Amino acid sequence: MSNKVINYLNEHQEEYLEVLNDFLSIPSVSTDPNSNEDVKKAANFVREYLDRIGFEKVEVQSTGGHPLVYAEWLGAGENAPTVLLYGHYDVQPADPLELWTSEPFKPEQRDGRLYARGASDDKGQVFMHLAVFEAFMEMDGKLPINVKVCIEGEEEIGSENLYAVLEEKKEQFQADFAVISDSGMVAENQPTILYGLKGFTGLEFTIHGPSSDLHSGIYGGAVRNPAMAMAHVLSSLKDKDEVVQVDGFYDQVDPLSEVERELIADVPGEDFKATTGVTKTVSEKGFTAKEHTMARPTLEINGVYSGYQGEGTKTIIPSTATAKITCRLVPGQEPEHIQDLVIKHIEEHTPAGVKLDIKKEPLSAKAYKVDPDHVLIKKAAESYTKAFGKETVFVRMGGSIPVVEWIDTIYNMPIVLLGFGTPNDRLHSPNESFPLENFQKGMETLVYYWQSLNENK
Amino acid sequence: MSNKVINYLNEHQEEYLEVLNDFLSIPSVSTDPNSNEDVKKAANFVREYLDRIGFEKVEVQSTGGHPLVYAEWLGAGENAPTVLLYGHYDVQPADPLELWTSEPFKPEQRDGRLYARGASDDKGQVFMHLAVFEAFMEMDGKLPINVKVCIEGEEEIGSENLYAVLEEKKEQFQADFAVISDSGMVAENQPTILYGLKGFTGLEFTIHGPSSDLHSGIYGGAVRNPAMAMAHVLSSLKDKDEVVQVDGFYDQVDPLSEVERELIADVPGEDFKATTGVTKTVSEKGFTAKEHTMARPTLEINGVYSGYQGEGTKTIIPSTATAKITCRLVPGQEPEHIQDLVIKHIEEHTPAGVKLDIKKEPLSAKAYKVDPDHVLIKKAAESYTKAFGKETVFVRMGGSIPVVEWIDTIYNMPIVLLGFGTPNDRLHSPNESFPLENFQKGMETLVYYWQSLNENK
Repeated sequence: MSNKVINYLNEHQEEYLEVLNDFLSIPSVSTDPNSNEDVKKAANFVREYLDRIGFEKVEVQSTGGHPLVYAEWLGAGENAPTVLLYGHYDVQPADPLELWTSEPFKPEQRDGRLYARGASDDKGQVFMHLAVFEAFMEMDGKLPINVKVCIEGEEEIGSENLYAVLEEKKEQFQADFAVISDSGMVAENQPTILYGLKGFTGLEFTIHGPSSDLHSGIYGGAVRNPAMAMAHVLSSLKDKDEVVQVDGFYDQVDPLSEVERELIADVPGEDFKATTGVTKTVSEKGFTAKEHTMARPTLEINGVYSGYQGEGTKTIIPSTATAKITCRLVPGQEPEHIQDLVIKHIEEHTPAGVKLDIKKEPLSAKAYKVDPDHVLIKKAAESYTKAFGKETVFVRMGGSIPVVEWIDTIYNMPIVLLGFGTPNDRLHSPNESFPLENFQKGMETLVYYWQSLNENK
Repeated sequence: MSNKVINYLNEHQEEYLEVLNDFLSIPSVSTDPNSNEDVKKAANFVREYLDRIGFEKVEVQSTGGHPLVYAEWLGAGENAPTVLLYGHYDVQPADPLELWTSEPFKPEQRDGRLYARGASDDKGQVFMHLAVFEAFMEMDGKLPINVKVCIEGEEEIGSENLYAVLEEKKEQFQADFAVISDSGMVAENQPTILYGLKGFTGLEFTIHGPSSDLHSGIYGGAVRNPAMAMAHVLSSLKDKDEVVQVDGFYDQVDPLSEVERELIADVPGEDFKATTGVTKTVSEKGFTAKEHTMARPTLEINGVYSGYQGEGTKTIIPSTATAKITCRLVPGQEPEHIQDLVIKHIEEHTPAGVKLDIKKEPLSAKAYKVDPDHVLIKKAAESYTKAFGKETVFVRMGGSIPVVEWIDTIYNMPIVLLGFGTPNDRLHSPNESFPLENFQKGMETLVYYWQSLNENK
């Protein structure tokens, strides 16, 4: 069956890529104060695009930081669902520049890919949505669904002002569901829906021993060594089978159903040994590495330091020892509760003769999971499969995306993480790129998806 | 009974202090290449002094580094013993200068102390020997014993060239015993003979995990965290009772006799809590902190580092983790054997999934101990007691002094560690000083000691 919107998009691919080039050529590096004008320019690019294709209430909203672009088109009527589309127009810095083959802000096509900072994360994927909306407008004079667009400019600096905006504009932004295209496939050309993210909580602890570094000969044998005390505490947190030993850590964990274990088994797994360089993968006893990374909570040491770090030997007993720890959480686990349990464990396992100082990481996130059988997910998967010609897999990810938790918490609506990136896109690194084919097939996916939802409500 | 040598010294204290001021005013900082001329100047000061008071074969010997001053006076005849006097004329840097109350190289008397870099370590103590020799020469025209003097200029930089010199000049330097005044009392005005030093051995190990730092969300659960692996290894080395868990670590340790435990109990112990700021001392199960620091082997972590050390949180799995360890050894323990045992333990306790890399510290030292009942020690203690009016205590120290092991190994002669410093001298720190009273009483001690030995052989 011929699809005139898709035909239109395919016929105009070249022109769309040219417009995308303009978008990618703006160095909207949110972390760099010297790029403030370019960040505004990128926001205006989005505003003008939405304005031109017929969106309403198009505005660049100030946030206290970089602005956010809002627009809506609600002409599909009350019988069509309303989607909140989230994305971001800001990008990571391009350094180190010398490692780029072509210039980061002069997009170049090579070997079937478009190379530019932001090609995948997230300008390229935001642009696909804009182009699809335009094609619908051109062909049908309308969209199959109601749309609210929220494209922010601070994602790469932690979405500093977004939470406040989402709370404040709750009425304006409220929708039936949210779609975010800021993630990717587990493998090239493998349609992938992300249906779960981990939460996290973190802390840092410092063990204070003697008031200054001591001569290890004169004082060794009289005082507790803070580095050794830290080693005792850290090693008590997790056993060699990668099972967290903190009392109650797993108590609230939603058990992994057989259905989910099968879903996970079906995902073409990353070759962890190849990508990380380890000689052997290790995972929690009773779970595969895929299950552990996607769907089981973890506790990791992110850094430790104590005493002498230079060349050779310095025979001291260090005055202090510090460790940084984060936990990745799964549905059921409350970040603050887990943080408290870990703190209690650390306190109980700190030996006598040293003083313990704990700093809680103030940021935390709850895990997010949507039912992979939810109709909005099912339809997204069907559209994805149809466009790419391959069965969609459903994955959970060990990472956390704060905006997902915030939308979940504040708006309490399902979130469809429909991303078209690939593991080879080199996000945040030199030579970021995006497969040209995925622009086309990704747009097709979106067309199918929006069309499928029009029959639905 | 009046002692004319002591009387002479007491009458000329002021003049001696003035000459000492000249010596202390030379910034002979051996580690600083800009001080090379001053280092030579200090060597010449010693050479000229010995030459002037009648020593023979006085020479500044080149060593490949800073020179060594050698001189001898063998006129006491074959029936008197020959002592090798070791000391050093080089000093530590004075930085940070702003923390000195008076200038480090402009000696100043305050509150009964002489403040200057080197006042205690070791120019002040070397000078006491020179002054005592001079007084004997002035009063008796001779010394009661035969003397060989070896004053080096590289002690503060690890005596880099001394071992080779001691080996090469074995015939020239050989004596019946050695005396070193480069240590101190356990408390102010507490005559102290050091009769044992610990040895040491060290190593550094690095645990290699993934080839670069990894995203803890995406990879947490699939790879072994090197920092956690390191914590498991480190914590296995010593239990919470401070007992080293390395197989065979204590096998060759000479047991601590009841006699020695009593000697140690008699030493007025340092108030470890006051000097180190810890809330509680800890020591090996079954031993006091004094016993553990003086006479039991220890294993200490000197430094660890892994992953992120900055402010806040960085959610990574570190690529590597490194730890530095040194052991202080007691008589019976072979440094290389202990190093091998620790390495074997680390290898056996490194979990699967990471790679272990071990760097042996090439420097090591055997422990040194002389029988506290040896007649040369007894006589030194009696002289010390007579001069200070207080019973001498016998201590072993947790530190290592390489030259002591070298003299022991190469010359196989007893070494009398007859030091007059105090715990408040602030060696290597700003405001180094030495009690004026100890110059006088220390010189008296030396006079009594040399005189006592003349009746002896």
